[in-house]
Order: sequence, then structure tokens, then C-alpha cells
Amino acid sequence: MLPRDYGVAAGGKCRDENSVTETTIEMTSLMCAHVSSAVKIRVTTRVHIPSMSSSTSSSLTAAQMTAEDQVQQIELLTSTDDDHGGVVVEMDEPKDSATFVSILRASIAHWKQLRKKGIWIKLPIHLVSLVEAVVKEGFWYHHAEPKYLMLVYWIPDTANTIPANATHRVGVGALVVNEKREVLVVQEKSGHFQGTGAWKFPTGVVDQGEDICVAAVREVKEETGVDSEFVEALAFRQSHMSFFEKSDLFFVCLLRPLSSDIQIQEIEIEAAQWMPFDEYATQPFMEKYELLKHINDILLAKFDGQYSGFSAVSTTSNFSEKTSYLYLNAGSLESINKGLNN
Amino acid sequence: MLPRDYGVAAGGKCRDENSVTETTIEMTSLMCAHVSSAVKIRVTTRVHIPSMSSSTSSSLTAAQMTAEDQVQQIELLTSTDDDHGGVVVEMDEPKDSATFVSILRASIAHWKQLRKKGIWIKLPIHLVSLVEAVVKEGFWYHHAEPKYLMLVYWIPDTANTIPANATHRVGVGALVVNEKREVLVVQEKSGHFQGTGAWKFPTGVVDQGEDICVAAVREVKEETGVDSEFVEALAFRQSHMSFFEKSDLFFVCLLRPLSSDIQIQEIEIEAAQWMPFDEYATQPFMEKYELLKHINDILLAKFDGQYSGFSAVSTTSNFSEKTSYLYLNAGSLESINKGLNN
Repeated sequence: MLPRDYGVAAGGKCRDENSVTETTIEMTSLMCAHVSSAVKIRVTTRVHIPSMSSSTSSSLTAAQMTAEDQVQQIELLTSTDDDHGGVVVEMDEPKDSATFVSILRASIAHWKQLRKKGIWIKLPIHLVSLVEAVVKEGFWYHHAEPKYLMLVYWIPDTANTIPANATHRVGVGALVVNEKREVLVVQEKSGHFQGTGAWKFPTGVVDQGEDICVAAVREVKEETGVDSEFVEALAFRQSHMSFFEKSDLFFVCLLRPLSSDIQIQEIEIEAAQWMPFDEYATQPFMEKYELLKHINDILLAKFDGQYSGFSAVSTTSNFSEKTSYLYLNAGSLESINKGLNN
Repeated sequence: MLPRDYGVAAGGKCRDENSVTETTIEMTSLMCAHVSSAVKIRVTTRVHIPSMSSSTSSSLTAAQMTAEDQVQQIELLTSTDDDHGGVVVEMDEPKDSATFVSILRASIAHWKQLRKKGIWIKLPIHLVSLVEAVVKEGFWYHHAEPKYLMLVYWIPDTANTIPANATHRVGVGALVVNEKREVLVVQEKSGHFQGTGAWKFPTGVVDQGEDICVAAVREVKEETGVDSEFVEALAFRQSHMSFFEKSDLFFVCLLRPLSSDIQIQEIEIEAAQWMPFDEYATQPFMEKYELLKHINDILLAKFDGQYSGFSAVSTTSNFSEKTSYLYLNAGSLESINKGLNN
């Protein structure tokens, strides 16, 4: 006989061993749903259900029981409610496939009963042996990072509203221009311009979670050793199918130098120097690149005081209480200017 | 005795059954590398190697052989060279795990001999049973879409230069303002503002491969039935950890209406209307949202002719010959203006 060991981790209710009824279990589920939607907590739900007779379905669920059956313990996956009526499961402990499949099926049935929508399962790469089992239960891939795979399943019959995966990489180009109208340029050891003699402005890819205005300053520091501060985004370009099926957003940023000594990053950079703008802009290879010519036109207009890009203004989001940068043409906005000058 | 059936699919060389030597195999590999780096073609390489004696390693590679051993056929994975010294394998045919592991190991050894760098394996979801085998050979996850998982492996001892995964979702907000200074607004059936009585401008997420200026027009058409054209990007905001660990770039776009009749999208939209700007901007809920207040300031400045956002200019990339949009403040750029007015 299986041990009678049960309880509900969230709230401590349903601890009366002698009151196992269908009503009790239904209340348990509802209380757990209520608690987990109010605050994000982990709910490990161990639900008492009567054991099934041999003639019934082999998939045990929290809703199936008859009063005369023995009590049996069914483990469900630990999950957290998300903001959209779904749940997120973050696996970590190894499990053998067969056990996992039973638990997964019981959990899906339980979530269906709770009318959950999207079911997310995050499998770290050390649990790769469970991927096949999850896919075979109807999950599909949502996204992956080096160390985990996120799978998702949509319960309702209606069209799914699963949010899209990330579609863009974000790159930055850094135009560091000093008071002598010299541009900080580099020659790279790899990439398209390697070995061509072309001098280009530093470029790079924004790291996960990094702001554009921060990334531009970082790239300059890493590649040339020069300290700088972000002034504005002069322009941006969107391109598609740049790697696999993803897209790129490339932000051309104007930076003001805070130092002048150059110390190149030996791994990536062949050489770096401060080059007079006229010499930079008239390099023969520039003729072939529309983007570079437009950037040169922008810089000329900037020198004449005729061009305003987008400055970075720090804002707080009401949805998340996190700070975000809003990029806009602050030149003509009195309210923004007051804020920037404080 | 295994059948002597071999050849090289690319170029048809090495078809002389009697000239199996280490030199021959080395030439085969080099020729294949040369051909596949010049053009992207599929190379199925079947390489003759002598069978191993029982005392040697069980992993057969194209480089291991002794003159007196029997000849045996080793199948390698079909691959295509990428532009960075690596190879891409797009699996499609089912294989049993054990066979696949042998082929994979032989292929890795072969690519090591060719001094390849990144090895990419794209596994469609119907081949989920092979994921574990690939990870156990040292691959990690690069990215995933609903129907496939991309895994990657770095051969050299040097730091890997595997390109980063996509990090951002891109959203658009569409401010459609007519000549009467009325703003096209909607009430949604779901989301943050649902049921609050708030009227907001249409928003949405850019589809994979879709341009920002196109997405804004599409969202307006879908949600309200109104035709419009993109004028400029007024501002953009970057926020992090918005869903899982990814980031968002949200572009606030100004659109000019080309029609006025409203036909709402019943599934998502409760109601839509043209609302005088003053009434829109003074809705009580606006006070709590910095972004919305900034946008209102921008619109006021725009009405006064004091604000320039970023217009969309079509450019051709020299790297890809594809057309991309460059967004910049075209108002002050004579060269750009000439282009826009043609």
C-alpha cells in the first residue's frame, strides 16, 4: 500500500488525511490557482487520488477517482503561473524518461482542468534526454540558448497567442569624433574589410540585456582603449536574412571622446588612429557603400549644426518598474531638454 | 567483404577504384573544400578507408588507414560550407541513433582534418530523437524555432566566434493622425488596458523578415481597416527582460491615413475611433505612463513643425545585394531629400 503522505505546499491546506473527496481536490486546485495568480510562487502539488482499477486508463489524473478506490500519490511538475493564464516549468533534477512521461501527462491533465493556456517547459542542456519525451506529448520548440531549450504547448482550442521569439540581433557602429573633427577609425584582423587597407569605425553586437548607448561606448573602449560618452543615434538600418533567418538592426551612434590615447585590442584590431574626417570620408572604398555615404552626409550636416539624431532619455516603465532608454529627437522638446539639463 | 562502391559527388573525381591511398583521400578532401568554398553546394563525401584491425579505436575516420587493411565505406553527413570557415548540416532523413552517432563522429573527425571551425547542425523537430546524441558529442544549443533546433560545435582551440543569437523582439506603435488632428485609437479585448476604458494607438509585433515601416501600416490595417502610409519613426524605446531573458525594441511610428472608414478586427479589438488629439492626450491614465507623455509632447512639437523623426530610405547592401531600409533624419540632408522627392 502506498504511504498516505500528502499536503499542499502553498497555503498548508488540505492536510486532513481523512477528508479525501473529489470536492477537496477541486478546492485544492482552485486555491492553488488563486494563490499562484496573486503572487508568483512555486506550487508543488501533491494530490490524493484513488488508485485506478486495472480496467481504466493508464494515465492518472487529479480529477479521476471513485470513492471506494485506494488512495495513491501522484506527483506533478513544479510550476509557476505567468501573466497570461499559462504556467512555466523550470526543470533541473534529472529524471528517467518513463517516470517523467507519467508526471508530465498527469501535469498536463491537471493544467487542462485548471484551464491553463500556454505551458512552458525550460529544459537545461543537461536534461537533453527528456527533450524527445516532451516533444512527443505535443510540445514544440519556442527558443533555445546555449544552455537550455524552451518548449511550449497550447492547451485551448482557440488560436494560440504564444509570444513570438526574438527576431533581431542588434549591432552598433560608433562614430567617435573629437573637436578637431577627427574620427576614431580601426583596421580589423577579420571580417569583410580585413586586409583591404580600409579604415572603418568600430562596430559590434549588443550583448543580451545591454543598452544600445552602453554597447557603443563599450565597443570603442574594448577596440581602441578610448573612453567616450554617447551623444545620439544618428540613424539605424534594418536588414533581413543576415544570419540564418534572423534580422539585424544596426544603430549608427555618435560618441564624444573623453580620452585620446589609443590602446588597441590585439585579438581583433590590426591598427587604430584618429583620422581627419575629410581623409576618412574620401577613402576610395566608401564609394561602393550607400550606408557609409549616408553616414558621411549626416556627419557633414552635424558639423554644420544641421542634424539632430535621437538622444537617450531614461524612463521608467509602469509595466515593470524597470528603467529603459527612450531615444528621441530631444532638440526641439522643451520638456525633455529640461530633463536632460538637470 | 564490404562492397567497393565509392565516389565523390562533387566533381566526380576519385572514381578510380584501384587508387585508394592516403594521398588520394587527402586530395579528395581538399578538392571538396575548394569547390564548396567557391560555391555553396551539397557535398556527400564517401571516402574509402581501410578497415581497422580490432585493436585500434572504434571511431573510424577518413585519416586513419594502413596500406594492408581492407577497404571499407564510411558515410559522412551532407554539409554546406558557410562564409566563416565552418559547415552547416541540414538533417532531414530519419536515422537510428547508433548509426547516426557513428556517422556524426566520422564527420567531426573529417571536418577537423579539413580545419573547419563552426559545425552547425539543424535538426527538424521530427528528428528530435537525435538531439541527445548530438549534445553528447559536445554540441550546444544555438537557437530554436517551432519546427527546428540549431546546434553548434566549435572545433578550434581558440575562443569561438560563433555569432550571437537574436536578442530582441521588435514592436511598433502606430500614430495615425489625420488633417483634423484626430488620432486613430482602439480599445483592445486583451492585454494591459483591456476593460479599463483607455483608448490607445494600435501596436503590434514585427513579423520575422518584416520591415518596421511595413509592420506599422499592416497593424493599422488589420486592427482598424484604415489604409495608411509610413511617415517617420518618432522615437524608439529599448527594454530588457521583457519576456524570458530577451529584450524589446519598440518603434513609435507616425503614419498618414489614406482612408478613414473603420472596420475593426473583432478578435482583438473592442472598438476604434478617430479621437481629437486633445481628448486623446488628456485621458487620465496617460499621467502614469512616461512613454505616452513623451509621445504626446512629440506630437505637439510635430504639429508645430518643430519635430523631425527618422524617415525610411531604401538602400542596397553591398554585402548581400538585398534592399534594406535606413532610418534617418532626412529633413536636413539635401542629398537624401533629392532622393526622397524623386
